[in-house]
Amino acid sequence: MNALDRNLPLAIGRLPKGKRNSIADVEGVRVGHATIDTDQFKTGVTVVLPCAHNPFYQKLVAAVHIFNGYGKSAGLMQIREVGTLETPIALTSTLNVGLVHDGLVQAMLDWCHAEGKYPTSINPVVCECHDGTLSDIAKRPAGAAHVQEAIQNAAEDFAQGSVGAGRGLTCHDFKGGFGSSSRVVEMDGRPYTIGILAMTNHGLMEDFIFNRRMIGKDIAKAMRTQSEMERGSVILVVATDLPVDSRQLERILRRVPVGLARIGSHMGHASGDIVVGFTTANTMPHEHGKEVVLFQVLREDALNLPFRAAIECAEEAVLRSMLQSETTTGYRGNTVYSLYDAIEKYIRQK
Amino acid sequence: MNALDRNLPLAIGRLPKGKRNSIADVEGVRVGHATIDTDQFKTGVTVVLPCAHNPFYQKLVAAVHIFNGYGKSAGLMQIREVGTLETPIALTSTLNVGLVHDGLVQAMLDWCHAEGKYPTSINPVVCECHDGTLSDIAKRPAGAAHVQEAIQNAAEDFAQGSVGAGRGLTCHDFKGGFGSSSRVVEMDGRPYTIGILAMTNHGLMEDFIFNRRMIGKDIAKAMRTQSEMERGSVILVVATDLPVDSRQLERILRRVPVGLARIGSHMGHASGDIVVGFTTANTMPHEHGKEVVLFQVLREDALNLPFRAAIECAEEAVLRSMLQSETTTGYRGNTVYSLYDAIEKYIRQK
Amino acid sequence: MNALDRNLPLAIGRLPKGKRNSIADVEGVRVGHATIDTDQFKTGVTVVLPCAHNPFYQKLVAAVHIFNGYGKSAGLMQIREVGTLETPIALTSTLNVGLVHDGLVQAMLDWCHAEGKYPTSINPVVCECHDGTLSDIAKRPAGAAHVQEAIQNAAEDFAQGSVGAGRGLTCHDFKGGFGSSSRVVEMDGRPYTIGILAMTNHGLMEDFIFNRRMIGKDIAKAMRTQSEMERGSVILVVATDLPVDSRQLERILRRVPVGLARIGSHMGHASGDIVVGFTTANTMPHEHGKEVVLFQVLREDALNLPFRAAIECAEEAVLRSMLQSETTTGYRGNTVYSLYDAIEKYIRQK
Amino acid sequence: MNALDRNLPLAIGRLPKGKRNSIADVEGVRVGHATIDTDQFKTGVTVVLPCAHNPFYQKLVAAVHIFNGYGKSAGLMQIREVGTLETPIALTSTLNVGLVHDGLVQAMLDWCHAEGKYPTSINPVVCECHDGTLSDIAKRPAGAAHVQEAIQNAAEDFAQGSVGAGRGLTCHDFKGGFGSSSRVVEMDGRPYTIGILAMTNHGLMEDFIFNRRMIGKDIAKAMRTQSEMERGSVILVVATDLPVDSRQLERILRRVPVGLARIGSHMGHASGDIVVGFTTANTMPHEHGKEVVLFQVLREDALNLPFRAAIECAEEAVLRSMLQSETTTGYRGNTVYSLYDAIEKYIRQK
Repeated sequence: MNALDRNLPLAIGRLPKGKRNSIADVEGVRVGHATIDTDQFKTGVTVVLPCAHNPFYQKLVAAVHIFNGYGKSAGLMQIREVGTLETPIALTSTLNVGLVHDGLVQAMLDWCHAEGKYPTSINPVVCECHDGTLSDIAKRPAGAAHVQEAIQNAAEDFAQGSVGAGRGLTCHDFKGGFGSSSRVVEMDGRPYTIGILAMTNHGLMEDFIFNRRMIGKDIAKAMRTQSEMERGSVILVVATDLPVDSRQLERILRRVPVGLARIGSHMGHASGDIVVGFTTANTMPHEHGKEVVLFQVLREDALNLPFRAAIECAEEAVLRSMLQSETTTGYRGNTVYSLYDAIEKYIRQK
Repeated sequence: MNALDRNLPLAIGRLPKGKRNSIADVEGVRVGHATIDTDQFKTGVTVVLPCAHNPFYQKLVAAVHIFNGYGKSAGLMQIREVGTLETPIALTSTLNVGLVHDGLVQAMLDWCHAEGKYPTSINPVVCECHDGTLSDIAKRPAGAAHVQEAIQNAAEDFAQGSVGAGRGLTCHDFKGGFGSSSRVVEMDGRPYTIGILAMTNHGLMEDFIFNRRMIGKDIAKAMRTQSEMERGSVILVVATDLPVDSRQLERILRRVPVGLARIGSHMGHASGDIVVGFTTANTMPHEHGKEVVLFQVLREDALNLPFRAAIECAEEAVLRSMLQSETTTGYRGNTVYSLYDAIEKYIRQK
Repeated sequence: MNALDRNLPLAIGRLPKGKRNSIADVEGVRVGHATIDTDQFKTGVTVVLPCAHNPFYQKLVAAVHIFNGYGKSAGLMQIREVGTLETPIALTSTLNVGLVHDGLVQAMLDWCHAEGKYPTSINPVVCECHDGTLSDIAKRPAGAAHVQEAIQNAAEDFAQGSVGAGRGLTCHDFKGGFGSSSRVVEMDGRPYTIGILAMTNHGLMEDFIFNRRMIGKDIAKAMRTQSEMERGSVILVVATDLPVDSRQLERILRRVPVGLARIGSHMGHASGDIVVGFTTANTMPHEHGKEVVLFQVLREDALNLPFRAAIECAEEAVLRSMLQSETTTGYRGNTVYSLYDAIEKYIRQK
Repeated sequence: MNALDRNLPLAIGRLPKGKRNSIADVEGVRVGHATIDTDQFKTGVTVVLPCAHNPFYQKLVAAVHIFNGYGKSAGLMQIREVGTLETPIALTSTLNVGLVHDGLVQAMLDWCHAEGKYPTSINPVVCECHDGTLSDIAKRPAGAAHVQEAIQNAAEDFAQGSVGAGRGLTCHDFKGGFGSSSRVVEMDGRPYTIGILAMTNHGLMEDFIFNRRMIGKDIAKAMRTQSEMERGSVILVVATDLPVDSRQLERILRRVPVGLARIGSHMGHASGDIVVGFTTANTMPHEHGKEVVLFQVLREDALNLPFRAAIECAEEAVLRSMLQSETTTGYRGNTVYSLYDAIEKYIRQK
């Protein structure tokens, strides 16, 4: 966490935050990075481990919301059909989805074999953003070794900003990457947590709103740049321990774009804008045990508070991804300024 | 029930049937008709009461599958969003949806007022088929009185064939109407029931398959008629007491068209082909009580048997709707032959 | 248009507005109201006529986006299936959908009969908001006469604010109703228009953002009120003459919620939040003429500008619905303040 | 083509077939295989080239229908969003999706580079079936070289049966693989073609219906085997030159399962049942040229004939995949009988 985060404290919404203000406030959730940082490449692999146990045999209830489907993410179809997540979620660069997909298959096989189990059908979830501005994207440098490294690095306290698969990303034409935030809501007097990990690579500079000020427009004017067409993508991983089924969780995920809209996203055409979420509250056994399973769900109108929590987390997680990233020069000498540096240079110094 | 049902016993599938072989084998489910049968009109209202209690305050978990959305059914959107049914399901003629919708609102208000409750937002579910061949459809003769009558007539033992909203329907160019069937499946050693009520108004004669014989083609040839474009619709109401959530129930409903395909449907363009289902196993309280609610669901792979049950019920329910309907002459002297009469006249007598 | 609109000019976005800054900037589009305004009732019917001709025989390409499906709107399913609109769009109060549906059927039959045509299957589109705070909603006073009146009143210059079906609505706990706005975009050097009519009945006071200021929170504090659960709904009718097919139009509609998010909506659970849109650029003949039809569509990446236009229109249309509505006292003496009066009383006078 | 195909001629439906009775009757469409056939592996890669030109710069209008989403196919999300296909379609084994995905990215980059173009975002479409009964699936032997080989082998006259990605598949517990069929329909007096390539790996023996006879049940009884839970998948690639937009094409694809239902599929839980289709009639340029593009579409009711054609093709393509496959012994000595051998051995010889 850098100086900026202290200097520009964020006051998004009104719900209380979790202890770490990150997705890892949901018990069992860990995040790990493998970063590839060379002159040619600014890219990597990031994984979200959704729980302490092997999720293949006790799958987590999950859901997906695709608010713009121009993207190459894999594994979402099966989540929609059966409402469960059975692997960690891997995040990487657009054209690297195939190799990371294969690496995640291998990691799952290794995990299961170590437990004496031999599954032959696995649904790896791999989401992606396009880091071609700062990285030689067509070369696809990430693979099985990076998946393994990211899994080994997974921890409750994890780096945010320009690391892992976020190393080469661009958000509202500033430096993007990973940001996280969490909120706590009460149900029947018991606290539950919602956390979001945002992988940010979307938005135009001139649309960017910060503290309800059109700061992006001012910076763009000062920099004399004009935003081109929005490209990129944004991936939002939502974790919770709330008692919800897949349909209810999907309703929560559907509110996430509201948070992004508040800071200026207009969901451009060429952007894969995807929310994938899971709850640790309900698990579905893989083809063994009793046929009738108990789920805890929420009384439907009690979802209003989780809706609000998801929106607040999303807005804050995206902002934190920008605030914790540093100015980066990458492939072909392209430079992307951090929000902090841009504000320092073009706004404050006037 | 006429002689034909005895003479042509149906051996659809391999799962055991419920006691009545009808949707009312699911405890609490009742069906009632109000029939309008004049020279000008062959139409009416049919209602499915999903449970003994007022469903508004303890909503039933529900789902919808639209396999062809050319139709005017109302109330399905909210079922998809919140996964619950809060009123009986009313069935009527295409252009009569509005008045029956209003009649169902009044019936629900009356029911709630009698319990000392005053809801101001109700989602009535009204599905429809087009009975314009036999009835003066543009006149919309059904209304609140018929909704009330159908509700009062609701019973576990109910008429099938050309009654209620089925009075003027046409299925595979033979006389259609209502048919029902049920199947029993075991989960953890306990029996559960799936039942279907089919309102049939779809299909072309030449496509009709009966006992795996292309009998429709033979009859069409003998009658020297040629089917026009498929019009009409088919509505399938699925009831169960299986422990499923809305997503799992929707997966069951999605298999229902398989049963129709087996007897010759090709899902014509101008046909509203809709499956709406509910389970009595899980209820969702209306904005009162604990915020965390317990649901029973199925281990996902245990759905295979309910899938099969739904397919068998659907095929049998559609056939029974035809086998229990009689040749009918209606509006403008149009006549639609029953399957029985058509077989007698054009096939057996040769 | 009242004084407030002049005093608080709106500068939403950067695209040029149409001549009227309303949905009627799209050629052929007209809006008409029938208002029911008594001590007991503040309600009515509003219709959008999508084109000068009878849309049944030359249907307009159309689409739907349901961002929260807790609502009772009718007719959306068929639009999704066949991608066309074949009637005017009627707007009314929640429990009045049935009678207005029937009234719209009659109006369409009358229109067709006058042209010597006798359709027997019509898909009326009726959307609704809940006006129970100011109107005795369970009585359902609107009917065929009001549909007819609203159609007759339809004009390019139409009233906004608390009229027609908007008479009893509440938006962010201020007085809501109807607002409209339009934007112009160029394609291949030719101007095209997008216009939105918003029927607003959603949002909480404390979430309301105006000119990027949390003014709702300030007013709520001054009024010492606390927002309850968000109820209501918001219906957004989008008209355009852009060359798009139904899929492309749906992509445009999906951006509309961004505009609402910017002023504080969080898409509450019990809100039917629906966008229904049509283009006058492509028509689909009803079962006559050539089988191959020419459509004009947009190169997919050219949709970015229409996305932005839809967002700007939505934000402005909702704000205008509030700015043009007056403080209203209705059923049981309930009073809802206009935004203007609330600002005057609680903010400016301090 | 083996003897069986002659001895058991198929008379599915009533529409005329194309010249080759295969997907390659649609002009420009070619299919190629790379087969891996060892003691350990019965697997491979098959590709469908949708057109003669590079589809990335003139994308083909496309659509997807997922009738059971338990599967690992990649690339479908973007087709749904933007309605176009921009790469060949690769087919392979379940856990091999990642490596084939990466191989298809490389093949597309090579193709574009050869044309002097350097795209950095490509959406490869890869679908899969599970061949673990006959192949050591966890080892994932297929890769970039096989993708390249399959593309090079692509031809209008291509092998059907147990080849390429079909080498190790099982359909209704008989040997499956690839089958194809086509139908011709007229619009405004001009012929258009629909063709299907089926990759078959679904269904239970006891459910299999052939020539409307429950032959699967008879064979199962004779073999004294009992089907286990349906696993596998079925992928159906639909090609056409019909003038349709993505929404209309999706309606056609939605009818494909009807053909499978007729021969006994019940859409088991653990089966990825996917239809992906494209038309060569309409292309969408990639970010260059005029912003307004002309599409040819069908008058909506004219879709009835294409619906029927798709159903007939699907049923015949699945049957041909079985009729053209031979009995195969693979991994761990597992043997799967061909339908022909099973009939010879268990039915005819009695």
